Amino acid sequence: MDQGMLQQALTHGRRYVRYGKPAGYIPELASKNPSKLGIAVCDMKGNMSAVGDCEDKFTMQSISKVIALILALEQNGFDNVFCKVGLEPTGDAFNSTVRLDHLTDNKPFNPMINAGAIAVTSTIRGATLEERKKVCIEYARRLTGNPELDVDYEVFLSETETGFKNRAIIYLMRSNGIIEGNCEEHLELYFLLCSMACSCRDLAVFAATLANNGVSPITGEQLIQPRTVKLVRSLMVTCGMYDYSGEFAATVGLPSKSGVGGGIISCAIGQYGIATYGPSLDDKGNSIGGLKMLEYLSDSMDLNMF
Amino acid sequence: MDQGMLQQALTHGRRYVRYGKPAGYIPELASKNPSKLGIAVCDMKGNMSAVGDCEDKFTMQSISKVIALILALEQNGFDNVFCKVGLEPTGDAFNSTVRLDHLTDNKPFNPMINAGAIAVTSTIRGATLEERKKVCIEYARRLTGNPELDVDYEVFLSETETGFKNRAIIYLMRSNGIIEGNCEEHLELYFLLCSMACSCRDLAVFAATLANNGVSPITGEQLIQPRTVKLVRSLMVTCGMYDYSGEFAATVGLPSKSGVGGGIISCAIGQYGIATYGPSLDDKGNSIGGLKMLEYLSDSMDLNMF
Amino acid sequence: MDQGMLQQALTHGRRYVRYGKPAGYIPELASKNPSKLGIAVCDMKGNMSAVGDCEDKFTMQSISKVIALILALEQNGFDNVFCKVGLEPTGDAFNSTVRLDHLTDNKPFNPMINAGAIAVTSTIRGATLEERKKVCIEYARRLTGNPELDVDYEVFLSETETGFKNRAIIYLMRSNGIIEGNCEEHLELYFLLCSMACSCRDLAVFAATLANNGVSPITGEQLIQPRTVKLVRSLMVTCGMYDYSGEFAATVGLPSKSGVGGGIISCAIGQYGIATYGPSLDDKGNSIGGLKMLEYLSDSMDLNMF
Amino acid sequence: MDQGMLQQALTHGRRYVRYGKPAGYIPELASKNPSKLGIAVCDMKGNMSAVGDCEDKFTMQSISKVIALILALEQNGFDNVFCKVGLEPTGDAFNSTVRLDHLTDNKPFNPMINAGAIAVTSTIRGATLEERKKVCIEYARRLTGNPELDVDYEVFLSETETGFKNRAIIYLMRSNGIIEGNCEEHLELYFLLCSMACSCRDLAVFAATLANNGVSPITGEQLIQPRTVKLVRSLMVTCGMYDYSGEFAATVGLPSKSGVGGGIISCAIGQYGIATYGPSLDDKGNSIGGLKMLEYLSDSMDLNMF
Repeated sequence: MDQGMLQQALTHGRRYVRYGKPAGYIPELASKNPSKLGIAVCDMKGNMSAVGDCEDKFTMQSISKVIALILALEQNGFDNVFCKVGLEPTGDAFNSTVRLDHLTDNKPFNPMINAGAIAVTSTIRGATLEERKKVCIEYARRLTGNPELDVDYEVFLSETETGFKNRAIIYLMRSNGIIEGNCEEHLELYFLLCSMACSCRDLAVFAATLANNGVSPITGEQLIQPRTVKLVRSLMVTCGMYDYSGEFAATVGLPSKSGVGGGIISCAIGQYGIATYGPSLDDKGNSIGGLKMLEYLSDSMDLNMF
Repeated sequence: MDQGMLQQALTHGRRYVRYGKPAGYIPELASKNPSKLGIAVCDMKGNMSAVGDCEDKFTMQSISKVIALILALEQNGFDNVFCKVGLEPTGDAFNSTVRLDHLTDNKPFNPMINAGAIAVTSTIRGATLEERKKVCIEYARRLTGNPELDVDYEVFLSETETGFKNRAIIYLMRSNGIIEGNCEEHLELYFLLCSMACSCRDLAVFAATLANNGVSPITGEQLIQPRTVKLVRSLMVTCGMYDYSGEFAATVGLPSKSGVGGGIISCAIGQYGIATYGPSLDDKGNSIGGLKMLEYLSDSMDLNMF
Repeated sequence: MDQGMLQQALTHGRRYVRYGKPAGYIPELASKNPSKLGIAVCDMKGNMSAVGDCEDKFTMQSISKVIALILALEQNGFDNVFCKVGLEPTGDAFNSTVRLDHLTDNKPFNPMINAGAIAVTSTIRGATLEERKKVCIEYARRLTGNPELDVDYEVFLSETETGFKNRAIIYLMRSNGIIEGNCEEHLELYFLLCSMACSCRDLAVFAATLANNGVSPITGEQLIQPRTVKLVRSLMVTCGMYDYSGEFAATVGLPSKSGVGGGIISCAIGQYGIATYGPSLDDKGNSIGGLKMLEYLSDSMDLNMF
Repeated sequence: MDQGMLQQALTHGRRYVRYGKPAGYIPELASKNPSKLGIAVCDMKGNMSAVGDCEDKFTMQSISKVIALILALEQNGFDNVFCKVGLEPTGDAFNSTVRLDHLTDNKPFNPMINAGAIAVTSTIRGATLEERKKVCIEYARRLTGNPELDVDYEVFLSETETGFKNRAIIYLMRSNGIIEGNCEEHLELYFLLCSMACSCRDLAVFAATLANNGVSPITGEQLIQPRTVKLVRSLMVTCGMYDYSGEFAATVGLPSKSGVGGGIISCAIGQYGIATYGPSLDDKGNSIGGLKMLEYLSDSMDLNMF
């Protein structure tokens, strides 16, 4: 993609970063510089364009829910995952637990909310917790094309120590029979996934792999089955941007997933993988500068899929 | 589209009609023959293929929510509509009212649930109720290419007499300040829209107009602004199939809208407008045979947009 | 009761009226002078003590729910009333509708919330609406010992014109089958009951009748069956003070009922009927000065029944 | 109390035990003989009457919530307890968690629901967990007048191992700031309290102590401050019988607390402490035979306090 176009998007996005603030629930996130902003775009041939703070490292947070879902689907098949989690959007805020035990069949609504992602993570296989961790990190490295991708262990520790709400969620699902096995281990794996550190460049490769029907634009390898890709992209549209998903589909129209670490991945199917970073969040938990840059690109380059 | 393909879809769909039943809340719907099934497809040049009970008349019900939304947006602009209704999916069942007064800003979640459609309908303009009715019917005639399209006045009367839940909804919104003016008139207009009688052929033309970016494939006339079309198609994906929308996006992947009258419209963007009819509904309120035919066509012809 | 004791209670209550404000939903209530405060106490022999603004007229509002319930029970028997309404407290705020259609059996929680009182009112019998109105007013006159008690027709008109939330509630119950017949007539009767104008002296007689097991301390007539009185007093304890009922039972310990018109009735069983008036309300909808006076009396005279 | 009267109550209650069943969530409760039924009554002089299975041991379960609350109030004062828990009934079923994080100020509704009792338990002081356990058991022994009262360690183990819902609840409150310190320790203390084994005779003494304003009818010792007793009795009325509390107040009219172990305690203030045992529960979690015996006694002996 044209570097000038990205530069214009960045200039546009910068106007908005002041209206939000970084996530505050752990010190590692709260201390981020809210004026940071970057964007990277990878096309289907692996060409990368990037501007702004595109080398900055940040944790994936909810973006890792997409990786967990893909891995779980590839390991277990659709039926073994969707017996534990639904496919429906909720309309609830990103930090809500209130309707978890509301469903008659007890399943969390979808894999993009915490409850759903925890249920999905619980199905990721491996002989031991360490092996399960290794499988996740290895897969994330292949999807991002970055063999050095790793966990931010300070964030991981903080999440583990303060994740009381997620602990509540997993024990509620344990009582409902959705979760089997060792809850603390599943949680540890979940927090590890959330704490994977990456840059916009890493995520642009991942997004491009999704936009390219599962084939890495770097290696040409089929990393995800096309059927899985389609399902994941549809969930990114209906549930990827917390309770802004509907409005984002209507205004930007790209399968995307946001994380409270400040990242967003976005797919222009068959064209581009896009990743933005900006730790200043709006009140729905989405990067405010990231949203504005994606809006700008979608409008300027007619990327809206609807 | 190939007639043989449609015939196969119909054969496939027929296997499932026995597992549902017609909507029961008014006698006119409850008495429908549940084994009826039809499908019509209109391409971007206006060529129509149709099999099964494609001439049968049925009422639009919630499919008319799409028409009401388009008309309201074209008359009033986006801001004057979306100050009264949101764009987010709910996860709630089609007949739920429970979360209506739950929102801090009081707006119904989206224009595809009853509360949202009633709010949208309240913004449709006209000097008198009769003129507003006329505007709606005229616009529906143009969108379906059927100058004789009209209201089923028996259904309309039944809906008006028994619509206590919708009456509750509008008065709740009146108390919240979302609705202004005469509630009973707005409701009458809403029930009129729901009661418009049509066939699969009519709806296939409407769906094709949506698939063709607002240009009627019959007359070549631009009936809807492209920007409106994009927004409506995104809402059909996130909210069009009640609380099956997420799963429908994941498995069929076409912007669609369902009605408890038994109809479904579906858009293969730039290719086809599809309409199905089958009054046997599943427990989420979607035509069970219609769903299966759309699933079949999407798989066989690779129409899934994700 | 000793006039000096009442005077002390009044002095105590006056310190708090500044911390609340009158109900704002209709102009007739909003315009009340928030510094008004009065209290009247009637003993079992009909002796009345009263201080402060004890002659001021105000509308009963929710206090009339007690009269409606008594009348409905005496006319129809327990079973014909409690098939339409439960006996359980809700924990919800006084102006909430959110859980109305939440119950599996659709009944409103209890007769002291709007939904429940409307359901109860719908069972009050009479050949015509006018006759039902007359029956209510006549019964209220006997219970208060005031043959001139009447409706404040300005308030009544205001309530009728703006009661959209109550209209929503009754139509929801109509759709659920709880309400039968003409909703607008039931609502009119409900608003009429809410709009009955009275003074502390009137209500003290009514409260004394309840404290005296249904026998008017003025006339000696058995106006309410003892079994009905017991049930009503228990409901006043569990549900009488909106979502402050539990704390009120714990701190004051008297069967009581509050109204947003500023009145509270309270029963010291076998001893006193107490009525307070003060239009300045706290955020739960209870008269702030009234609460404080009752707290003072209960403590000073050891009236707490627990 | 007259032994013949108790025998009649027992005969009456026995007719109903077949309509319920024992609590099923742990094997130790599920295996109880549902036809067991007993009742014991202790008057203000310590005279005990008892019939039926009044020597059978069962676990206190939720009845221990009353002991936890009394101990917490006596140790910490009202303000330090009620900053963590409210005083309002909920209307929710006994096993619901859904509204826990619904409250703006995050406090559980009252000390008689699990969330509230866990919050209350977390304030019970002691240098170590073992000391806190000892304090609880010692206090329970004094309240029941049984120096050999002890924990059923099999039930305790079962509760600890399967208490996922309570674990979810405590972590949710930990995330909300209601709970401080070590969640697993608080839970262990909570489960210990639930698992205290007792007979009807033990509980009749405890109920009589409550009926006697905190003075043990056995030893004459003031075990609970009168102010605490009043508050506890009011909460037993508004919240003691799960979501049957309102109806129980209306029909029986005695401050009572029920446990899913099959016990109920009931206070006829200044007259009797009553305890019933019958493991067959109705669908609200109350002993079905116990309810019927209390109904019988209240009617026959005119004990209803309202």
